[in-house]
Amino acid sequence: MAKQESSQKKKIADDLPTVLVLGPHSVVEAYEKQFSEKFHFLKPWESSIPLHQFLSTHAGSVQAGFFSAVRRITSDILNNLPELRFIMTTSVGLDHIDLHECKRRGIKVANVGTIFSEDVADMAVGLLIDVLRRVSAANRFVKDGLWHQQGDYPLGHKLGGKRVGIVGMGRIGLDVAKRLNAFGCIISYTSRNKKPHVTFPFFPDIQELAANCEILVICCALTDQTHHMINKRVMLALGNGGIIVNLARGAIINEKELVDCLLKGEIAGAGLDVFENEPDVPEEFFQLDNVVMTPHHAVMTEESLRDLYELVVRNLDAFFSNKPLMFEVV
Amino acid sequence: MAKQESSQKKKIADDLPTVLVLGPHSVVEAYEKQFSEKFHFLKPWESSIPLHQFLSTHAGSVQAGFFSAVRRITSDILNNLPELRFIMTTSVGLDHIDLHECKRRGIKVANVGTIFSEDVADMAVGLLIDVLRRVSAANRFVKDGLWHQQGDYPLGHKLGGKRVGIVGMGRIGLDVAKRLNAFGCIISYTSRNKKPHVTFPFFPDIQELAANCEILVICCALTDQTHHMINKRVMLALGNGGIIVNLARGAIINEKELVDCLLKGEIAGAGLDVFENEPDVPEEFFQLDNVVMTPHHAVMTEESLRDLYELVVRNLDAFFSNKPLMFEVV
Repeated sequence: MAKQESSQKKKIADDLPTVLVLGPHSVVEAYEKQFSEKFHFLKPWESSIPLHQFLSTHAGSVQAGFFSAVRRITSDILNNLPELRFIMTTSVGLDHIDLHECKRRGIKVANVGTIFSEDVADMAVGLLIDVLRRVSAANRFVKDGLWHQQGDYPLGHKLGGKRVGIVGMGRIGLDVAKRLNAFGCIISYTSRNKKPHVTFPFFPDIQELAANCEILVICCALTDQTHHMINKRVMLALGNGGIIVNLARGAIINEKELVDCLLKGEIAGAGLDVFENEPDVPEEFFQLDNVVMTPHHAVMTEESLRDLYELVVRNLDAFFSNKPLMFEVV
Repeated sequence: MAKQESSQKKKIADDLPTVLVLGPHSVVEAYEKQFSEKFHFLKPWESSIPLHQFLSTHAGSVQAGFFSAVRRITSDILNNLPELRFIMTTSVGLDHIDLHECKRRGIKVANVGTIFSEDVADMAVGLLIDVLRRVSAANRFVKDGLWHQQGDYPLGHKLGGKRVGIVGMGRIGLDVAKRLNAFGCIISYTSRNKKPHVTFPFFPDIQELAANCEILVICCALTDQTHHMINKRVMLALGNGGIIVNLARGAIINEKELVDCLLKGEIAGAGLDVFENEPDVPEEFFQLDNVVMTPHHAVMTEESLRDLYELVVRNLDAFFSNKPLMFEVV
């Protein structure tokens, strides 16, 4: 009976469209059962065979891939997958995928579009209030029993009236601006280009933006142009009352110079969800109360994980039935 | 020379209006020099004489008092100050002052009005995002070096779409509603009376509000009616996904029942700036990652401390020159 069930299950799995999953992802774990009813997921990390061998073994059957942002999708990997025609990625950022090579090979790429933008924007505000008002540090103060011993806790700073520079005015930047507007912040932004539909003041130059703000919120893509864009010069322009919140990619900030500026008090604090070499975090940050960190955690909540599951199913269904994709980027 | 200066200084101080300051307060420390140029502050806590004796000694000269919320202003204290005609308090809440007795004696009372409401509202949002998205706990996770060892951190919950019940729709409640509206929350409220100018749905009963929400934000005054208003019945109505944020007064919540509900998972979390017996905090909270606490810290920032200084000077000047007071409540 068990054997019969198992063989029936195998048969069903064989009939299901095959999808290569590169890199474990919480959505694959959380919705494993639901996914398994619609797709046959190939998971190299569950196999003892080395990745390249795994890919060559399945090369002929893989037309669609579901790739997390952890693994770089190089032409080397694509060489192993000659039949690949569709990559669904779990992220908004696409810096881990060789898009040029995908285009050349006729591989469609879709990202998660805007489904995480509100979560990221919420976390931007959360990190900012935490740094300004010392929430995490005050929480530790109370939990360590120090309120009774030491009395009043040092005051934080007011959010209203602060000049906030949004770096990258895409969907996330707009969602951050909308929220901070309700707190009475004064918003301006920089972006590759001035956005015709955005009325906040535009600064074409990041250093000029920093000089006109007390707070920078980084929500741009990581590209050759934005790599280490937030460097010491920008931080000095922001000044010693300045706070940087980064929810985009770690390498947009020169992390070594950030450590240096924070240790010297050349800026006032940072809220960081992303780092240059995750999960490695500069140890200098561990002792700084004015640095609040989350482990690349801004992007998702249980609610948006469900949205991601639904989007992945929808896009894989669309790909296998030649229907239009959502959030197609290549 | 030094003696001459000192005697001159004394003479000037004698000519300045006398103000009794009851209870140390950060504004008195931070703006000591500026205050001393305009008023002669009597500070009983700097004297070795017991308070009652101190008060009787100065009874004849004290017409104005600047009282922090820490000390209860009872008829017993007022008996010692027969000439008192004006109390400026540092708080919004007035539960520490016997207002009935003040009215009977013809003592004017002014509070700080709306100058702290934005800071309190900002902190409400900060605490709420912290609990929902686990900011403080995630920060500790990173700072303890656990990201590298343990990998992904558990997901939090989305703020957008959550039904938030505001308890007390005064200035602070309105400021909280305005902010959470920008995050896509669905706002409703309870208050002594339905507010004609507020369009959010009104529930006359706190338990009914709780049953229709996932989040309660407490911003009402502490009165006989609101004392222990948030009890186990209300928490059970809120449900096991529910979060309570309290920025008003600790005793509005039955703290023992809150501890019980949190330990049993009958509600999902709490963000608490105020407690029943400050600075005593229930030790059961210390180990709970879903409880984020700040030490009665929501009310003020460096910026609003400056606003408080300016308001106190303005109101004391107004009192001594018989001009209208700001934020007069009695």
